[in-house]
Amino acid sequence: MYNFNLQIPTKIHFGKGMVVNLGKDILEYSDKVLLVYGGGSIKKNGIYKDVTDELIKNKIEWVELADVDPNPRIESVREGIKLCRQHDLGGVLAVGGGSSIDCAKVIAVGVKYDKDPWDLVVDKKLMKDALPIFSVLTLAATGSEMDPNAVISDMATNQKLGTGAACTVPKVSILDPEYTYSVPVKHTAAGVADIMSHTFENYFNTNDAYMQARMAEAILKTCIHYGPIALAQPENYDARANLMWASTWAINGLLAQGASHAWSVHPMEHELSAFYDVTHGEGLAVLTPAWMRYVLNEDNIDRFVEYGVNVWGIDKNLDKLQIANMAIDLTEDFFANKMNIPMSLSKLGIGRENFEKMSVKAMKGKDSIKGMVELRPEDVVKIYEMCL
Amino acid sequence: MYNFNLQIPTKIHFGKGMVVNLGKDILEYSDKVLLVYGGGSIKKNGIYKDVTDELIKNKIEWVELADVDPNPRIESVREGIKLCRQHDLGGVLAVGGGSSIDCAKVIAVGVKYDKDPWDLVVDKKLMKDALPIFSVLTLAATGSEMDPNAVISDMATNQKLGTGAACTVPKVSILDPEYTYSVPVKHTAAGVADIMSHTFENYFNTNDAYMQARMAEAILKTCIHYGPIALAQPENYDARANLMWASTWAINGLLAQGASHAWSVHPMEHELSAFYDVTHGEGLAVLTPAWMRYVLNEDNIDRFVEYGVNVWGIDKNLDKLQIANMAIDLTEDFFANKMNIPMSLSKLGIGRENFEKMSVKAMKGKDSIKGMVELRPEDVVKIYEMCL
Repeated sequence: MYNFNLQIPTKIHFGKGMVVNLGKDILEYSDKVLLVYGGGSIKKNGIYKDVTDELIKNKIEWVELADVDPNPRIESVREGIKLCRQHDLGGVLAVGGGSSIDCAKVIAVGVKYDKDPWDLVVDKKLMKDALPIFSVLTLAATGSEMDPNAVISDMATNQKLGTGAACTVPKVSILDPEYTYSVPVKHTAAGVADIMSHTFENYFNTNDAYMQARMAEAILKTCIHYGPIALAQPENYDARANLMWASTWAINGLLAQGASHAWSVHPMEHELSAFYDVTHGEGLAVLTPAWMRYVLNEDNIDRFVEYGVNVWGIDKNLDKLQIANMAIDLTEDFFANKMNIPMSLSKLGIGRENFEKMSVKAMKGKDSIKGMVELRPEDVVKIYEMCL
Repeated sequence: MYNFNLQIPTKIHFGKGMVVNLGKDILEYSDKVLLVYGGGSIKKNGIYKDVTDELIKNKIEWVELADVDPNPRIESVREGIKLCRQHDLGGVLAVGGGSSIDCAKVIAVGVKYDKDPWDLVVDKKLMKDALPIFSVLTLAATGSEMDPNAVISDMATNQKLGTGAACTVPKVSILDPEYTYSVPVKHTAAGVADIMSHTFENYFNTNDAYMQARMAEAILKTCIHYGPIALAQPENYDARANLMWASTWAINGLLAQGASHAWSVHPMEHELSAFYDVTHGEGLAVLTPAWMRYVLNEDNIDRFVEYGVNVWGIDKNLDKLQIANMAIDLTEDFFANKMNIPMSLSKLGIGRENFEKMSVKAMKGKDSIKGMVELRPEDVVKIYEMCL
């Protein structure tokens, strides 16, 4: 196991009606916050009312930044920073999924940074200090509610980059599974794919940590068990609760620390979103089985066998290669037939026209993606082609 | 899944040589601490020197409280509080296993409490504020390094009670697996039994949380895989690292929150330690299989089946009762033959002389232990008898 530092200080209030804990916790930091949210579904499903009632009850003033995009844009970040400065706000409260929370994070740092916030997206080392960040989660997917990460896009230059620092970990997050009841099938499925992909990125590695690998299998089993239930019964509390909690633990540090974890599928997918603005989780689902087939080799087959046996319950006495291939087929079948995700790039409206450009950008300025198997641009093109 | 609040703010530095992070972290709080440790093994194995070198390097003064007992006594707590007050110390640093850390926790609160600290052991609600607590872990067992819990004994009255509050969660813990290389076989095995028992207490419950149950299985598998390796090869880094990290996660809140978790075996064992001062983990190992056999019934058999199939790899197509009994037999065999724990009360030097008295005290002032199956004093006597 590698050396590591771990601190996960976010205070979580998990469960039905737990929004009642929000006001007093915010008041420990400020009584004037920026309220960040997306397209307005929170006004239809009552969450906006729950949150603002709680703010009013605790005499917390707020200014609003609405219409944050699903792949949040640097323009929204700039706007949020301006509002915080204009109104002298002391905290940022995101109500939404990863997009709103990610946007809130970079706003919170940007207020304390005197140049353009895109710098902070390009270079996380510039992130030194932030306004306190709070979140009310409405989508089980990115894990942004209990981690430092934020992904921000500049569509003008087709750039989608990840950033984050200790100061961008939320102070308090409200996780009410009922707040995800109204998430449509498409985004429920994409969220599950995102949780599973975060787990795969940690699990398929070059240097393992035993306990963390078993924890990863626990999260994968949870997604496979409850994903289809949440799709069929959107108001199944246990399904929504387990998926919500799985989303948090897939990426809050537990799985990553102690093992190697150079991510492969996320950088490839970020280019799909940056060029075509597709739903992140759908892009991940399409790429994952292809990536698995492309990288499977004699050195890493044991991990695929463990995946097949421990997660999918495949008979451990079968031939190794057979187990590995069955596990990959089951993964693809799960996304396609259990989660109803459109499982090709063409179905997502993506052709081969930008494959070369995207494959180079996926390197993020390096020569290759150093994942479980090193990928150069030509490898990424081949994987994209497998997904057409 | 039940509603819950979770915050695990301890900063963990995990790995070889990570003690070099201790000084600067302590200095954020104080430059004068109480150094709490046990019987002096840390002077033989070099850990005392590592820690004090780090304190000297950072110009941190310290006063020592040595000779904390394996079941830490209230007398040590009183002595520690006196030293903190006499020398105006600003923090408590435990170097050791759960005993030293638990003792440090109650000292840290006791300094801020103006009556006798036994009150704090009896009633955790009196714990309001504490000096900052730091730990350097030398034994994988109790999880005290990342949780609020402390167990303190008063041997004069045969009382051993658990307490803890938000203010007793350590600020910083150093987890260096090499610091457990010199732990003797007996205590390595007892530590593994303690980790597994914490996990069982959460796993065998009346109201389940799916993801947490799979996480529990991950920890059990880790113990079963690495326990025997650590016994055979005390300097196997991966074994020591995985057991150390498993000890932390078995009891830091992840497994407990969201599910029911009324503990059964720990209260029964605390009476063995309170009356006979036996090694806690050995007492747990002896009681666990007997408790499992006693409580197994039609209502809870599915959990035993999951335990057998998911943790022990028993064929899921066998008869349920057969799987459950095989799983219990394998648990007993593991403790007896893989971990070499003396598996009867007589081997621990305990006869039936105090069974009635202990069984009543195990109720902790209530009528029964409300675990997966409710246990009254007469049930506890029967379980003790099964272990003779």
